[in-house]
Amino acid sequence: MKRTLGVCYYPEHWPETQWAEDAARMAALGLTWVRIGEFAWSRMEPTPGTYDWAWLDRAIQTLGDHGLKVVLGTPTATPPRWMLDRHPDMLALDKDGKPRGFGSRRHYCFSHLGYRAECAKIVSAMAERYGKNPHVAAWQTDNEYACHATTLSYSNAAKSAFRNWLAQKYQSPDALNRAWGNVFWSMEYSDWSDIGLPNLTVTEPNPSHVMDFRRFASDEVVSFNRLQTDIIRKHSPAPIAHNYMGAVTEFDHFATGADLDIASWDSYPLGFLSDRIPAPADHKLRFVRQGDPDFQAFHHDLYRAVGRGRWWIMEQQPGPVNWAPYNPDPLPGMARLWAWEAFAHGAEAVCYFRWRQAPFAQEQMHAGLLRPDSAPAQAFGEAEQVARELAKMPDVGTAQAHVALIFDYASDWAWEIQPQGRSFSYFWLVFHIYKGLRRLGLNVDILPSDTADLSAYKLVLAPGLFTLSEPLKAALAAHQGTAILGPRTNSKTENFAIPVPLPPNLPGLDAKVIRVESLPPDVPVPLAEGGNLLHWREKLEATATVTEMAEDGWPALVSSGRLHYLAGWPDDQALTRILHRACAAEGVETDPLPEGLRRRDTATHRFLFNYNPVPAEWGGVAIPPAGVHWTEL
Amino acid sequence: MKRTLGVCYYPEHWPETQWAEDAARMAALGLTWVRIGEFAWSRMEPTPGTYDWAWLDRAIQTLGDHGLKVVLGTPTATPPRWMLDRHPDMLALDKDGKPRGFGSRRHYCFSHLGYRAECAKIVSAMAERYGKNPHVAAWQTDNEYACHATTLSYSNAAKSAFRNWLAQKYQSPDALNRAWGNVFWSMEYSDWSDIGLPNLTVTEPNPSHVMDFRRFASDEVVSFNRLQTDIIRKHSPAPIAHNYMGAVTEFDHFATGADLDIASWDSYPLGFLSDRIPAPADHKLRFVRQGDPDFQAFHHDLYRAVGRGRWWIMEQQPGPVNWAPYNPDPLPGMARLWAWEAFAHGAEAVCYFRWRQAPFAQEQMHAGLLRPDSAPAQAFGEAEQVARELAKMPDVGTAQAHVALIFDYASDWAWEIQPQGRSFSYFWLVFHIYKGLRRLGLNVDILPSDTADLSAYKLVLAPGLFTLSEPLKAALAAHQGTAILGPRTNSKTENFAIPVPLPPNLPGLDAKVIRVESLPPDVPVPLAEGGNLLHWREKLEATATVTEMAEDGWPALVSSGRLHYLAGWPDDQALTRILHRACAAEGVETDPLPEGLRRRDTATHRFLFNYNPVPAEWGGVAIPPAGVHWTEL
Amino acid sequence: MKRTLGVCYYPEHWPETQWAEDAARMAALGLTWVRIGEFAWSRMEPTPGTYDWAWLDRAIQTLGDHGLKVVLGTPTATPPRWMLDRHPDMLALDKDGKPRGFGSRRHYCFSHLGYRAECAKIVSAMAERYGKNPHVAAWQTDNEYACHATTLSYSNAAKSAFRNWLAQKYQSPDALNRAWGNVFWSMEYSDWSDIGLPNLTVTEPNPSHVMDFRRFASDEVVSFNRLQTDIIRKHSPAPIAHNYMGAVTEFDHFATGADLDIASWDSYPLGFLSDRIPAPADHKLRFVRQGDPDFQAFHHDLYRAVGRGRWWIMEQQPGPVNWAPYNPDPLPGMARLWAWEAFAHGAEAVCYFRWRQAPFAQEQMHAGLLRPDSAPAQAFGEAEQVARELAKMPDVGTAQAHVALIFDYASDWAWEIQPQGRSFSYFWLVFHIYKGLRRLGLNVDILPSDTADLSAYKLVLAPGLFTLSEPLKAALAAHQGTAILGPRTNSKTENFAIPVPLPPNLPGLDAKVIRVESLPPDVPVPLAEGGNLLHWREKLEATATVTEMAEDGWPALVSSGRLHYLAGWPDDQALTRILHRACAAEGVETDPLPEGLRRRDTATHRFLFNYNPVPAEWGGVAIPPAGVHWTEL
Ligand SMILES: [Zn+2]
Ligand SMILES: [Zn+2]
Ligand SMILES: [Zn+2]
Repeated sequence: MKRTLGVCYYPEHWPETQWAEDAARMAALGLTWVRIGEFAWSRMEPTPGTYDWAWLDRAIQTLGDHGLKVVLGTPTATPPRWMLDRHPDMLALDKDGKPRGFGSRRHYCFSHLGYRAECAKIVSAMAERYGKNPHVAAWQTDNEYACHATTLSYSNAAKSAFRNWLAQKYQSPDALNRAWGNVFWSMEYSDWSDIGLPNLTVTEPNPSHVMDFRRFASDEVVSFNRLQTDIIRKHSPAPIAHNYMGAVTEFDHFATGADLDIASWDSYPLGFLSDRIPAPADHKLRFVRQGDPDFQAFHHDLYRAVGRGRWWIMEQQPGPVNWAPYNPDPLPGMARLWAWEAFAHGAEAVCYFRWRQAPFAQEQMHAGLLRPDSAPAQAFGEAEQVARELAKMPDVGTAQAHVALIFDYASDWAWEIQPQGRSFSYFWLVFHIYKGLRRLGLNVDILPSDTADLSAYKLVLAPGLFTLSEPLKAALAAHQGTAILGPRTNSKTENFAIPVPLPPNLPGLDAKVIRVESLPPDVPVPLAEGGNLLHWREKLEATATVTEMAEDGWPALVSSGRLHYLAGWPDDQALTRILHRACAAEGVETDPLPEGLRRRDTATHRFLFNYNPVPAEWGGVAIPPAGVHWTEL
Repeated sequence: MKRTLGVCYYPEHWPETQWAEDAARMAALGLTWVRIGEFAWSRMEPTPGTYDWAWLDRAIQTLGDHGLKVVLGTPTATPPRWMLDRHPDMLALDKDGKPRGFGSRRHYCFSHLGYRAECAKIVSAMAERYGKNPHVAAWQTDNEYACHATTLSYSNAAKSAFRNWLAQKYQSPDALNRAWGNVFWSMEYSDWSDIGLPNLTVTEPNPSHVMDFRRFASDEVVSFNRLQTDIIRKHSPAPIAHNYMGAVTEFDHFATGADLDIASWDSYPLGFLSDRIPAPADHKLRFVRQGDPDFQAFHHDLYRAVGRGRWWIMEQQPGPVNWAPYNPDPLPGMARLWAWEAFAHGAEAVCYFRWRQAPFAQEQMHAGLLRPDSAPAQAFGEAEQVARELAKMPDVGTAQAHVALIFDYASDWAWEIQPQGRSFSYFWLVFHIYKGLRRLGLNVDILPSDTADLSAYKLVLAPGLFTLSEPLKAALAAHQGTAILGPRTNSKTENFAIPVPLPPNLPGLDAKVIRVESLPPDVPVPLAEGGNLLHWREKLEATATVTEMAEDGWPALVSSGRLHYLAGWPDDQALTRILHRACAAEGVETDPLPEGLRRRDTATHRFLFNYNPVPAEWGGVAIPPAGVHWTEL
Repeated sequence: MKRTLGVCYYPEHWPETQWAEDAARMAALGLTWVRIGEFAWSRMEPTPGTYDWAWLDRAIQTLGDHGLKVVLGTPTATPPRWMLDRHPDMLALDKDGKPRGFGSRRHYCFSHLGYRAECAKIVSAMAERYGKNPHVAAWQTDNEYACHATTLSYSNAAKSAFRNWLAQKYQSPDALNRAWGNVFWSMEYSDWSDIGLPNLTVTEPNPSHVMDFRRFASDEVVSFNRLQTDIIRKHSPAPIAHNYMGAVTEFDHFATGADLDIASWDSYPLGFLSDRIPAPADHKLRFVRQGDPDFQAFHHDLYRAVGRGRWWIMEQQPGPVNWAPYNPDPLPGMARLWAWEAFAHGAEAVCYFRWRQAPFAQEQMHAGLLRPDSAPAQAFGEAEQVARELAKMPDVGTAQAHVALIFDYASDWAWEIQPQGRSFSYFWLVFHIYKGLRRLGLNVDILPSDTADLSAYKLVLAPGLFTLSEPLKAALAAHQGTAILGPRTNSKTENFAIPVPLPPNLPGLDAKVIRVESLPPDVPVPLAEGGNLLHWREKLEATATVTEMAEDGWPALVSSGRLHYLAGWPDDQALTRILHRACAAEGVETDPLPEGLRRRDTATHRFLFNYNPVPAEWGGVAIPPAGVHWTEL
């Protein structure tokens, strides 16, 4: 499959007279895909039950006439104002019980059955009308599930659905009481209708209660999405995608991914560096106009797994955005670098967001490929360059990685519920390990936590996994290679209790976590060979070999053959040493890279990406700031 | 007109037996004015419809008997408890929908018609009774509109009034939808009753929606105030004032000012330095007992404009206050310095707040001219000194400034709604420019954004103006002098959209802002000649002359003749250079002042104010800490 | 009375088959006490009115059979879910008006009469059944009143009870209006039903209003507690305790203490250092695994006063806890040190919390004496050592201190209501003075603010006392010794007004506070002899001798014979000098201690506690980290 480019477009924002010229310019630029429709419900169904498809018919036709393929989005992220008259209680409620109202987007509760029925209706109407349209070559469901923290709702609809979910799972309140340990503070329930949502409690609610609520909420996203995919598949052979976000873990993307053909994500490297990456100030400063050198790659690898190999960038930042705390202008070249990095990680398509900067409403300060006056913006020329370069490159092709890293959404919920120390985060722990691997120049595959076969990998890492699934346990047992587990791996039962025997309880590795401590960021635990544990450390009672020792005499890494357990959060120095040794032991070649330079091999090429604002040297090659370099393998 | 002193007094707080002695001491101190009445509703109308004027009659008589003139305040900032029984829904609601209840002050929604009727009744009763009273020489409406962030209300009364306001403005929902760009996220309305207030949305609401809500809310203050001035004018020839606050921009003070005769403000230099001025720690430390050296002057100049030349200090900080995060004791001399600075900027009167420190209720830790035990407090002697000094000085007289600075309330709303970067603030940008001018020793006139004649000024600055009004555009075109506009000037349409052609779209200056970036405070954009742009920078496509260049090659200041556009927020060094050159070009003499020393010329005198805690030298004169120095011109 | 050890145990959490073994191990460890029952309401009364005592009978019997004494807790901190069906409005409301719901603990409003009746019923049932049980040797009411900020409720039940309380106190609304100064902002009430709770006001409510609400809320805790003690005493001769917390001042512990036989508290040194002690970063770092060296001692001395000599530790931290921002592992030895320090301060018993770490529900990460797998945890061996050491030591015995420090809950409410400066806190001021005394090696007695006899003390300190009570005033007048009062002492009337004559108004000391200033932490007021006042300083008009002078010439300490008034918050250097001189003057021997080393004399022994992570030297003795050293006196 050829690597392709695309763009997001909103015909309803522009006079129809402009459509043909826009389409012609898109085609001339070398774009293949145009995503449309995902916020246009008020134009598709201006009043309840009355559809207006004519404009959309013409828009699709115009794009198709210019050889463009349409990704058609369902508009369910933006129910029109009339929806509230029909379903006043469809709004999600926030943790404080306040409604999250009309006037922006994503103002719905996933559990509201009336709203689900409305979604089914509009999706059916779209799928029936466009399912066989030759220009509609892909679908997108809704838009950025969970964006603006919209997964969790404390509405009556959610409460009622949660009770049903619990009744299905536990069958009796007594079973639930036992599973959750509700005896603890007289929290026992005698009836399903006793059970509330875990908000507005005096102090923290039972973590088992919250964990089930998080699972339920994730399941609601999955079934909401499946409602749409089931309908679309009835009418259309085109593949279906959803556009995920960065560092969003509110629902299990692997579970929604199972119902989709393609995973896609919306990549805003500068916005994300500004608004969600917890990096030190000097790091944020150095990469302020380029983005974090690993954040994009991490999500490329994650969504490649979520899409079972098929993934896109559905929205690529083209210039300054409007929504982060600070919105700098990308260094010239970054809009090209980001696209090439995605392709190097196996993307089938990269779509820039958006075609023309909209001069009105919420995102008027969000750059596009065109300026509001239709002149080309900075990214236009960079996209053009990518299009030219793509023409000479081979098809999509991903190299087999030797290293696997397990990522598990439920574990992020678990440690968000019970961090035990303010600076512990599952997501950022996994990302920290990923960064350590990337600094060594390694290709990494990210795998879900129910992976049943690890035979392709020489090195497997599974930090912070709440519970080891049965398939993964078996795969680890059968694995011929090095595995590094911990910290916190397998430290809870499915019901969110501490298992006895004590964790990690790994077959073949005699070690017990007898005590943990969470630490302020300025309290390191020094290791005998240099570096430290930070944020988190565990005290182990173990007969396994002590491979790394803390200066205070407690084990930091214990090993039994090729199975290792890491008793804390290693800093960069300690992490690099541990990973280096593991790679050496398995014969995995490493290539320590200078700051801000990153490497990725495809099946045919080796790519280098310079995220620095200054030139970088590597293997005798000088790579300019924001530069991309590739050589055939 | 003679410069005068006054004081705020609450006869209802003290035994009637004390009034005569108080009045005698006020007169002996040299005071002219006594403001009374503004919180006494529960004593004027103890039960609904039953008035008790006897005590107020006697209080006014007692003061008048001692030769004092009364400023009589309407008590509408403090509706009594019984008001809530009559109008339970008169409370404003905060952004979260919570009522802002009884128990302090300003607990009303400006849009509540029932409350407006009650205000009309009490004001009518007062105006009828005291309109011709020979001792009532001025009026004050309400007290500190907007104080405690009370302009915006999310009540039903406000919602209903907002819908009417929108219907008047747009005439049809379709016109509103087009003006706001509501197609963007399916936010289109089909009926006025669809439209809500822009709170409690999932993510940010449409900025056009918020902008109209802010305009509406400001208009509500204006009409609430006009309701009172219309009534008072029917019965009284005395001038009417309102007492504004510092750094409060929630409503358009020029618009309320148009219905008033005098602008006055409540000047709390130490409170404001502590609670609202975003200065670095070393600045706050140096001026902790003196206040920011420019904050008072800025407001003097602003309110002189709001009052069309006539302005007062209605409340002058006399000692420590009670309401700021920290409440230090002013350096001895500051209560005199602040008064003299006000007079140098053209104040007609300076009234200290308050006569005697009240030992009870919310402000018991707020100093007065007297201590709670009636002994003179620190400021008493300083006021006495000012009174003696005033006797020998000429009448109120303001020198014509050569420099004008435009200030626009709506622009502050606009950039609060859409800062685009966390550290961008219109108010503090304008204040930053003002400080730059003051450091050069310049007199500055502040002008509203609809100014139609700039012919008196050699140098005009208009930073950050959301939209250039037609009168100002014409005035700038006709202006024979230097004008420096930008950053962000004229970058939005009235409807809060990006205009095409792109901004600043200034006749005679070919320059387009093609991209902007907001920057964290630690990311400067260095300029070729030294100094930096901070917080904000714009990238220009321009054929105009590049007068200042960033080190990265983008223009920082472009010029066409005497019209300049500034493409960012200059730091002190860059700002001083730019202003210095502009003054030199226009033959405006500058006098760079040492830190904390400030100068102001009146029609007849040159004043110097030493805000430092240490002596300052200037032109061979040594000025002590908190010292005031004047020479005849 | 012999010093004893104990533990908290939850038979309902474990299979009954395990009870006997647990009891045997407790006895073998040397424990005397087992606290049970305090969260088990859902097991005692599974459905309304139906009791199940059988399991509790057997649990008590099993413990008793092993020679253990039971402390039986009433379960009123955890009403079961069915309670809400019976009393839906029993929940407390938070300051925003949101209900504080079911799902954790302490979800009740102290003022709800229906809930009080339910509490009376369950306590009666328990007292009747177990009042004469030979193994029930003590009682505990409820659990940790005020924990999770649960004293203040803004419910309808609270509002109604508050109105009654006010009516009792003031007899007429007019009297209340006068007492509160409600004329100030037209806040006058004409009927009790006009009066609301002091939340949700536009700006700060009247401090007199809040002060009465705080007194009322404290009284509600007292009467809630008395309801239980009255019932228990009818049926049981055993002493009654309540377990207080650290740095909790929401209610007057002296008042609840008057109805109890024993004061006890829950001592979590590492949790408290992490979550509530406002210490600088280097201090938090040094003591991260030991706790603040004075925080425990302060509470020991405070609760010894609250218990009129009889006090316990009801819950002693044994290892890492789960609830603080960071939860480190205590240094080995601390679980022993903390116990010994308690005994040195006069504790009768120290009970570790808890026996076995519960692997489920909210506190699953809270260590116990046993691990979840029943193996001994770190503290097990340390408790064992303490048990062995206790056997050889004499009975409980407290040395008479020469120094008294007054502590007053109402003063903490007062300065929380009106700090006047962000960094002023009564609690931390008193603690700061306490630390200064401890650094000098002094035994300190803490006394309530209505103490009528000071004759036992050579030195008395009373910083920050809102109002001097009549008994204390008389005791001070009669006192033959040194007294240091101030800052802020006696600066308000009972009604929360500034008294005239001005404070401190101390007989025999001519000094008036004519002005105060609150200061940011980086604005010191240097003293002539070194050191500074911080946070707070007062300007005095005084004829009394100036003993300490600020560099700016204002008095810092004024004295008349042995009566001193301190006009600010002294830093460590100034405080040490002042205390040193006072001790010298009174012939109180001081012993300045190195950092982290603390000393306490009992009637028979001198104890030294090394809170440092490194060895400490004292008097030629080397004390290891976490070491305890004692010598006979
Ligand atoms: Zn997006
Ligand atoms: Zn005021
Ligand atoms: Zn506890």
